Amino acid sequence: MRVSVDVCVVPMGTAASVSAEVARCVEILRRHGLNPRPHPFGTAVEGEWDAVFGAIRACHEALHAAGVPRLMTTLKLGTRVDKVQSLDDKMRALADRLAPPAV
Amino acid sequence: MRVSVDVCVVPMGTAASVSAEVARCVEILRRHGLNPRPHPFGTAVEGEWDAVFGAIRACHEALHAAGVPRLMTTLKLGTRVDKVQSLDDKMRALADRLAPPAV
Amino acid sequence: MRVSVDVCVVPMGTAASVSAEVARCVEILRRHGLNPRPHPFGTAVEGEWDAVFGAIRACHEALHAAGVPRLMTTLKLGTRVDKVQSLDDKMRALADRLAPPAV
Amino acid sequence: MRVSVDVCVVPMGTAASVSAEVARCVEILRRHGLNPRPHPFGTAVEGEWDAVFGAIRACHEALHAAGVPRLMTTLKLGTRVDKVQSLDDKMRALADRLAPPAV
Repeated sequence: MRVSVDVCVVPMGTAASVSAEVARCVEILRRHGLNPRPHPFGTAVEGEWDAVFGAIRACHEALHAAGVPRLMTTLKLGTRVDKVQSLDDKMRALADRLAPPAV
Repeated sequence: MRVSVDVCVVPMGTAASVSAEVARCVEILRRHGLNPRPHPFGTAVEGEWDAVFGAIRACHEALHAAGVPRLMTTLKLGTRVDKVQSLDDKMRALADRLAPPAV
Repeated sequence: MRVSVDVCVVPMGTAASVSAEVARCVEILRRHGLNPRPHPFGTAVEGEWDAVFGAIRACHEALHAAGVPRLMTTLKLGTRVDKVQSLDDKMRALADRLAPPAV
Repeated sequence: MRVSVDVCVVPMGTAASVSAEVARCVEILRRHGLNPRPHPFGTAVEGEWDAVFGAIRACHEALHAAGVPRLMTTLKLGTRVDKVQSLDDKMRALADRLAPPAV
């Protein structure tokens, strides 16, 4: 089953700034071939179910191994059977409906 | 790796009321032995990583097989290595700090 | 406009255990008359839009004033115009469909 | 109080495709001056607390007025008092730590 997932990993029990931990996760998601697209509140990925959740597990394992005592990750997980829709397709469907931003 | 997860499955392309689909998921999570605790915005579960995500996948598969064209599931996923903390432990830690509600 | 909201406040830049901060928020939500119902991953509340978001703002202000440098709060926010549905109604609709748990 | 918020509006009781409703919300968030940045799972905005939540309320009101019976919106809401950090700052902090993607 193909899924698209928005991944937001929040380290707890660490410093307030977490860009190092987030970058570490983006690198792991890349190495797993999931086409990660970071945005200000997370990273969108897409792939087969087991590959995606295996990669997210690898993120948790890597951060805990690096000393993060607690993680609270928020995921949004989309599946659909009425059509095939990639992350690019989602962005294109929205862009087609939006007026260009005023300059 | 042990995880506790909050699962909120939102069917799209269906009627506005989704309690049948939510109940279906709770039954599936029960059958997978994950100790599901429904609340007004989802269901908390706990277990081993692969068991939990296998059960969530089974929820998606069952609802799609039943005709739901699209699912948008929100998960909160907690892991910690500083201590073992069950869902019961989490609720107890909070209750110990709360004054009883005023009558 | 009436809303039901699931509130999960995650302090960052603090210790890994956050039950004190969560309890503080539940007390604030109670004082604002929002009928808070804590669960293992947050607290469900219900009320008028401005009252609810005023109370959530009060939670952020109180925790920052108490020294929390950063907060990442996740909200689920439900509104519907096809029917009136309280948190109790939501739980009842689900319970009516669930078999009693096996003993 | 300044906030940055990730907004993901999910219409329920409608067709499975919701790009029209999402585009409508992005337009409303623009008109409220919140610098919306759509991504595959939502739209990041930033501004003063009351302006942000007023705009999100306007999204709910507009979609219900247009016939959507139920909305389930997921928000991530970030505040911090240790530093000022815009959405651009967040993306830059991450980019500075990421290796360029392999070609």
